[in-house]
Amino acid sequence: MSDDGSPLMDDLDIDLFVKVFAQTGFSPFFIMLIPTFYIFQGAKITDSIVVYSAAYLVVVCAFWSIKWISRLYSNQGNLFYSPQPFEWGDQIVVITGGSSGVGELLANTLAVKSVTVVVLDVKPIRSENYNISYYKCDVSKWEEVEAVSKQIIEEIGQPTVLVNNAGVVQGKLLLDLSPEDVQQTFGVNTLSHFWTLKAFLPGMIEKKKGHIVTMASVMGIHGVAQMTDYCASKAALINLNRSLRSELDKRYKTPGIRTTLVCPGHIHTALFSTLNMSNQFWFPTLHPIAIVKRVIQALDETHSQTIYLPFYVHFTPLLQLLPDWFTDLANWVTNADFAMKDFVKMSGRREEEGPAPSAAKLR
Amino acid sequence: MSDDGSPLMDDLDIDLFVKVFAQTGFSPFFIMLIPTFYIFQGAKITDSIVVYSAAYLVVVCAFWSIKWISRLYSNQGNLFYSPQPFEWGDQIVVITGGSSGVGELLANTLAVKSVTVVVLDVKPIRSENYNISYYKCDVSKWEEVEAVSKQIIEEIGQPTVLVNNAGVVQGKLLLDLSPEDVQQTFGVNTLSHFWTLKAFLPGMIEKKKGHIVTMASVMGIHGVAQMTDYCASKAALINLNRSLRSELDKRYKTPGIRTTLVCPGHIHTALFSTLNMSNQFWFPTLHPIAIVKRVIQALDETHSQTIYLPFYVHFTPLLQLLPDWFTDLANWVTNADFAMKDFVKMSGRREEEGPAPSAAKLR
Repeated sequence: MSDDGSPLMDDLDIDLFVKVFAQTGFSPFFIMLIPTFYIFQGAKITDSIVVYSAAYLVVVCAFWSIKWISRLYSNQGNLFYSPQPFEWGDQIVVITGGSSGVGELLANTLAVKSVTVVVLDVKPIRSENYNISYYKCDVSKWEEVEAVSKQIIEEIGQPTVLVNNAGVVQGKLLLDLSPEDVQQTFGVNTLSHFWTLKAFLPGMIEKKKGHIVTMASVMGIHGVAQMTDYCASKAALINLNRSLRSELDKRYKTPGIRTTLVCPGHIHTALFSTLNMSNQFWFPTLHPIAIVKRVIQALDETHSQTIYLPFYVHFTPLLQLLPDWFTDLANWVTNADFAMKDFVKMSGRREEEGPAPSAAKLR
Repeated sequence: MSDDGSPLMDDLDIDLFVKVFAQTGFSPFFIMLIPTFYIFQGAKITDSIVVYSAAYLVVVCAFWSIKWISRLYSNQGNLFYSPQPFEWGDQIVVITGGSSGVGELLANTLAVKSVTVVVLDVKPIRSENYNISYYKCDVSKWEEVEAVSKQIIEEIGQPTVLVNNAGVVQGKLLLDLSPEDVQQTFGVNTLSHFWTLKAFLPGMIEKKKGHIVTMASVMGIHGVAQMTDYCASKAALINLNRSLRSELDKRYKTPGIRTTLVCPGHIHTALFSTLNMSNQFWFPTLHPIAIVKRVIQALDETHSQTIYLPFYVHFTPLLQLLPDWFTDLANWVTNADFAMKDFVKMSGRREEEGPAPSAAKLR
């Protein structure tokens, strides 16, 4: 991340290399030029350079074709018709935990696109945009979600997009977690998804349309020290996204309701501001805008998808299949076992925990 | 499973084939005989049958060596000394949900081995064995776990083995789940692990010894319809086992406290008695005794391990890496989307749900 936090330029990290490589050395159009160029230069079709580059082209084409067909399959796509464009003006987007971090940025970004945004949070959003409506709601409590959801549907309308984004981190070792800590983590991070789905999914099922965005985490795939509760609560979400997909497809018969799962790595927000990540080249810290961009893109495409960001997250599911010494190696390289050592809970503090220490005190 | 439910003989399913294959076509000792036999018969060392069988032998040896070394690594093993034998007589084993199903069978099996067994459950265990002590406890509630744990440590001693086995299934589609259902699922299946760990882990850390068995499920790896809450609660446990391992190894510096994760497929117990599993050859239903045997073996070996049973469960983590159409295919083959259709909640019913219908009524 650049020092001033500016996202104007891409950072020099592995994700940039992957991005460039996908457009060059792994692009069918680009690769196609190699054998073509040689043949035009007089090379025979049996020359090894032509044969090998053609074989590589086949591999590259196969990769993108499988990806594309899988995507068409997941979204009941069709080779001949593209889906209707997403009408942003008609959408009512509910964002839980929308008053800070990624949620706040998403709310503001959508609001300037003239989308009706509804923010559920325990503290109000600081925004002058009249497209944002704020409802005070502790999403970990069913009674509050139920009451507020009725109010929203009456006052604003049936939400068409639900972004389940609220999250809280305690950052304590297992034995230091108080029962209230554990209850809060699972309440805010996991149970809230069940409550908001119970509240807003029926309306989507009626219209057979909608989009549910589940904000999970790379730590839901791979558990690390000092995060037992957080990691477990996020693992539950990744699984929930899968079983929800099955129910929507096969039981409610509403495949048109899309589901997007987001598994980001470390994001530079207040939630994790005191985290020590090593190795920014291979395991870069994300700008919140990177996540917001991808979520908006997913909504715009009206496609169900899983967003792994940054690139290394793609490989974390493999850890489950590899032996312990590999996991230990990965944890050592990323400093995962000790990254939370100096963690201070900045957001989501409960009353009895008092206010967060000021940034100055943390130095 | 045989009609009379007898576990005396292995069932004819893929697990039996794997078992036989591991002892024959995948056994280094057995495979070694092939090139040896040919050479003694006068074949030259460069003959293709000798070369190919020797190459296969290398692959087989490499597989078992990696497995063995990984296991040594995970358990701070040593090539020259084997660990001290597990003294069953000195153990105090706490089993949550020990009054029915797998927990009950494990309690009874250990008790006849003269192990001190402590059962935590909401209903008493029906057993005459004086090695079993029963404590009434709703493990989903921290206050109850805290009170009972103090009583146990005072009256019986510091538990050395904790089997977190309690589980409950609602078996409803997401929108049919009541808030109480969701709370119960996560309380009993997930939060209870945090409570019992808070209660019993400090004593183990003091002695730098102990064993924690986490009863998860294949459905914690792969979410299915009508099980959104259950699957999510079990996914949390799989992740918890991983982060707990990191904390024990690196933060509490007590690698001697072992962790065993159990991911079983469908088990023939009251919990899932009304499940429709198709394809018993590839996806066999387990006898509870198969799980109990493996758990006792894990305790006896004093090794941290992950138990995937039956064999097909080994492949479920791959589903996360494969496209949606592969998951749909897997769900179709296993009938996963509809297996719970006739489910009736038999165990863990709350007061307001009334008693379970009799088996006669279900026909």
